[in-house]
Formats: sequence, structure tokens, C-alpha cells
Amino acid sequence: MSRFLSGGLSALEAYVPGEQPRDKKYIKLNTNESPYPPPESVVKAIGRTEIEDLRLYSDPECKVLRAAVSEEYGIDRKNIFLSNGSDEILNFAFMAYGDKGAVFPDITYGFYSVFAELYGIKTDVIPLNDDFTLDVNAFCGKNKLVVIANPNAPTGLALELSEIEKIVSSNPDGVVLIDEAYVDFGAQSAYRLTEKYDNLLVVQTFSKSRSMAGARLGFAFADNEIIEDLEKIKYSTNPYNINRLTQLAGTAALKSGGYFKENCRRIADTREYVKKELENMEFTVTASAANFLFAKSDKIRGKELYLKLKEKGILIRHFDKERISEYNRITVGSREEMEAFLKAVREIMEETV
Amino acid sequence: MSRFLSGGLSALEAYVPGEQPRDKKYIKLNTNESPYPPPESVVKAIGRTEIEDLRLYSDPECKVLRAAVSEEYGIDRKNIFLSNGSDEILNFAFMAYGDKGAVFPDITYGFYSVFAELYGIKTDVIPLNDDFTLDVNAFCGKNKLVVIANPNAPTGLALELSEIEKIVSSNPDGVVLIDEAYVDFGAQSAYRLTEKYDNLLVVQTFSKSRSMAGARLGFAFADNEIIEDLEKIKYSTNPYNINRLTQLAGTAALKSGGYFKENCRRIADTREYVKKELENMEFTVTASAANFLFAKSDKIRGKELYLKLKEKGILIRHFDKERISEYNRITVGSREEMEAFLKAVREIMEETV
Repeated sequence: MSRFLSGGLSALEAYVPGEQPRDKKYIKLNTNESPYPPPESVVKAIGRTEIEDLRLYSDPECKVLRAAVSEEYGIDRKNIFLSNGSDEILNFAFMAYGDKGAVFPDITYGFYSVFAELYGIKTDVIPLNDDFTLDVNAFCGKNKLVVIANPNAPTGLALELSEIEKIVSSNPDGVVLIDEAYVDFGAQSAYRLTEKYDNLLVVQTFSKSRSMAGARLGFAFADNEIIEDLEKIKYSTNPYNINRLTQLAGTAALKSGGYFKENCRRIADTREYVKKELENMEFTVTASAANFLFAKSDKIRGKELYLKLKEKGILIRHFDKERISEYNRITVGSREEMEAFLKAVREIMEETV
Repeated sequence: MSRFLSGGLSALEAYVPGEQPRDKKYIKLNTNESPYPPPESVVKAIGRTEIEDLRLYSDPECKVLRAAVSEEYGIDRKNIFLSNGSDEILNFAFMAYGDKGAVFPDITYGFYSVFAELYGIKTDVIPLNDDFTLDVNAFCGKNKLVVIANPNAPTGLALELSEIEKIVSSNPDGVVLIDEAYVDFGAQSAYRLTEKYDNLLVVQTFSKSRSMAGARLGFAFADNEIIEDLEKIKYSTNPYNINRLTQLAGTAALKSGGYFKENCRRIADTREYVKKELENMEFTVTASAANFLFAKSDKIRGKELYLKLKEKGILIRHFDKERISEYNRITVGSREEMEAFLKAVREIMEETV
């Protein structure tokens, strides 16, 4: 830290992304990436001409990409915001709507508390129930910035659409942000409710279900006044936030027919298979609706399993955090990757007993 | 604007990027893009494998790209910061170092005042001299965040390295940010001075001289403590800020031998040619060291020339701003584009007389 840094930022603790060790080739089940590549339409969209055109600025309005999102979801363009990854939308939302305070669960995406600290926002952190379900009533009537990941991370548990609507309708004077990074793997999206409620901001991403984590592309649906706020912050910080090739890739990805849904189905199938196998080894596994599993065993400490798998060349994510330190979050990879994972877990459990 | 927006943001006026009309095909001399494509190495760097790998997150540490910048400039990796366009670095710097106030000229890159307003920073706006030169002494001894574009935009005028050093050394308790977006076209970079002064932040970009505006890639040199501050803000807002293909393109662009310098030389040659031609038509033209010219004529209003050129399919940038409203900023395009520009100006001037 330099001696020049603003006082408000000096105590800030930044987010820590999942590790990316390079000492050997790992099976990466730690950052919720897709095991499947983007559709062929994306490969075809980026050729010599498009690369040569990098000399020109990207379209700050993202007109073509926005039209493609509009067509895919049947939502008007003025109700769509696009960003350099969905973290950017979360950042903007905390900056824009946090001044009355922010409400989120104790166990959820770790970045929410970082944004709150960055902007000096008072937080109301509500504990999940013992089984990691969310106490819907505790999030009602807050009239602050309410932030809920649905499905939640790292638990994978999803709310019903009616529960989301209850929270949204009971907080008419606060923005309710539903972070749907994992929604395509088995939960119900709330995006249609943005047509009914002016305080709902639904955030999605191309990183997981659309196999484009490395392109950095997020999007959001909301009332057009909320979209205008987000645009204002974008044009006051980084107007050309989405580069040309990502705009092209995103547009092409939306025109890939059933490829995306088929991938989500395959991942959900693999998830259920791995869940059952882990349960056969007496693991406790949450009912995940996401592209990851959240599991613990009474026979091995969470951290020990994580470290032993790492030794065997398999990365999963362990959180050294109260209430969940015995658990691990395991990204659902390809069937082959998951067989290797299960084999490694079996070996470790046999050694342990 | 929504009724939820934080009070501090409601009066904010965002930056307005250069227009990108699509009603017909224009010769674009309004956003300081390069007329030349990125080097062949960039085209070669992005193939099927790299596009398929978009399923994986980009490296938040940008290890490979950082090493390439380090090699190109002979600056240690810990003194380099990379960003999603150089606007992002400017944004972070205002956020990190603005709390004692910010100092910049009245005529300069319009985004500085937007950042200051966004973060509620008091500004000390110092008028340029009548000939648009900068009063170096007026920027000394401020000990606030001092921001200077060198060469300046839209005037194109550059400071000597000794003048920059005087400003840096006389502000030991404030960060001095030198925005070198246009430095490669004819000014001296101050980046070596970051090894001598812990308060100097030198910002550059791939957008202009390196023909990659559409890739969004900025970089900065500074003392490692300043770099740590910027990294902290990045990891607290958007850790994966630079996508995979931009990291690849940037790395490849740095390995293109003399292509980049040759382009800068061609653009500087064209600039001097156009300057002389405009002066032959009795335009007043600043001694630009950038990839644009800044010119006015006593025979035609600045806005009128801009509008008449637009009618003829040529876009230049006009600023409706005190002191410079009779001027226009003209990006230096290819020789052919500039011949078309000069021909159009000649026609307009003949009609006007």
C-alpha cells in the first residue's frame, strides 16, 4: 500500500479468486467454468477481418449484442444492460444503490461484502438456516439493497420464483438484486418479473452456462430507469468497457440454437450422477441447482480432502470460513473429469478409514 | 434516473464519447483510432484453440502479458499494472488518490472532470496559457493528485521531460499522473522516472499507436506500492477485468518488431504534411506531437466546418467548449484519408469565401 492511498481504501480486503496453480496440469473443478467450449458460431465469428478491426473502438452502446440479447429473452433493449463480466454490474449496483445499506446472507458469493466495504456501506448480514436454506421472511421489508444469489453459491440451493417475488414486492423502496450466475443449470429465472417491479435487477453472465468465462460478458434486466443509472455509471467510469471480440462472441453465442441448453442438461445430469456417488460414500451433499456440488463427509476434514485431491492433480474449492469449513465446492466438469474425481475421492476415503 | 440512485450520483454528468453515426460510410477522423491494423502477429495469435478456451477464465494476474510489457520496456513486472483500457486506470487513480483534491488544466481530456465529480473530489482547474501551452510552475507544489496528459488532448502540445520531472519532484506528497495515451507519436515518455519517484504514475494504452482501440488494453508504470494500490482496487471491483483474447492480442502485439514504430513514423509524417497544407489555407494549427491535429480558421466557425465535413462524409471532433469552440480535432488517418479530408476542406473554404 502506498502512503498516498485514500484512508477509506486502506483497510479494504480485496476478493480472492480461485487459485490457478501452474506447477502441473490439473483437472480444474474449482472455478465453475464449463467443460464444454463455446459453440462453433463463436469460432466462426472471429476471423482475420474482425481481428484487424481491433484498430477501431468497440461500440459503447453494444447495439448488435444488445439486440441479440433482446431477441433471445424477449425483453426490450432499453431494459438490458451489458458489462465486462457480471462482477461489474454487481460493483455498479453497490455503488448506485447501497447508501441505505445492503442485505445479504452470511453464506453467499464472497464479493458482496467486498463491494460493501469498498463503498462504506452498512451491511445487514442474515444467517442462512442450519440446512443452508434462506429464511425468505428475514429478507422482506428491508427497503435497502437486497442481494441474493439464486441459486446461491457455494450451496447451490435455489429459491422458488414465488419466494423471489415475495422479497421483491416487500422491498418497494430498495433495489433487489438477484444474481443468477448459475440459474440456467436448474433454477427459475426472475427476469420476467422486471416487467412488473421497478426495483428488481436480475443479473446473468456468459461465464458459466454459455461457456465464455474468458470473454468477460455479463448482462442484466431491469426497469429502464435502473438501466439508465447503470449506463450513467458506465459512461462515468469506462464507456468502452466491452471489447470488440467479446461483443462479437456474445452475439454469435446467442445464435447457437440448442447447444447451450444441451450443455446445461448434460451438466445437470452429471451433477446428479456425482451427487448420488458421493452420497453412496456417505457424503452430505446439498440439493444443488447449479453447475457445482457442495459436499462434506464426517470421515474427513474439508480442507484435508481438498489438499489430498490437489496432490492427485484435482482442484476443488475450499472456503476457510465459519459454518462451511467442512464442505468443499466441486465444479461439475465433463463426465470423464468427474469419473477421475470420484476415483480419487474413493482412494482418499479408503486411505482415511 | 431511478428513484433509488444514490444522492451523490444523481447530478453526475457522464463522459460523452465521440459520435459513431451509422447512417452512411464515413471517413472517421474523430476518435483518434489508428488507420493501420494491428500487426500480423495478433491475427495469428487468435485461432480456434484460443477461441474454444474462452470457456476458461482469463488470468487475473495477466502473467504472460505482464512479462511481455516488462520485456518491451525494461521495467520490472511489479511496477506494471494492466487494465481494461487506460480509462480504467484513470478511474482507479481518482478513486485512490483524489481525497486531497485533484489538479488538471482547463483544456484537456474531458474525462478527468467526470472522475472528479464521480468521487466528489475538489478540483483545482488551471487555465492553459493563451497559446495552449501549460504553465509548468502553476502545477508545482500542489501535493494533490496532479493529472496531465502528455501530449495534451485536444491540443496535441507536449511538455519536455525536464518539465514533467519538475512537476513530479515538486509534488512529493501527491500522486502525479502522466497520461501518455499519445506519447508514441512524438513526445518523450516519463516512464523511466517511475524508478526515481514514488509519486509518479505513467499511463499508456494500446488504443492509438498500437492499433488496438477495440481490444481495450491500458497499462501503467509506477512504484510498486502504487501498483499494489491499483491491484487492490481491481481485486475489489473486477479481478478478471482483461479478457483472454485481449491478453493474447496484447502479448502478440508487443512481439511485432518494428511495425508499431513504423506506423507511428508514418502517422507523424502524414500529420506534418496535413499541418502544412492547412497552414497554406491560413489555418492556425498547434504543434501537435500526437496522432491528431488541432486547427482553426478565421474564415469559418469551428462548428460550421465540422458540420460541412460531416455532410461530405468526413467525421472530425468538435468540442462546444469555451476557448476552443473555433477549433476542431482531426485524427491523422491514412495518407489517402487525409487527401480526401484536405480536398473537402478546400471545397468548403472556396464555397465559404
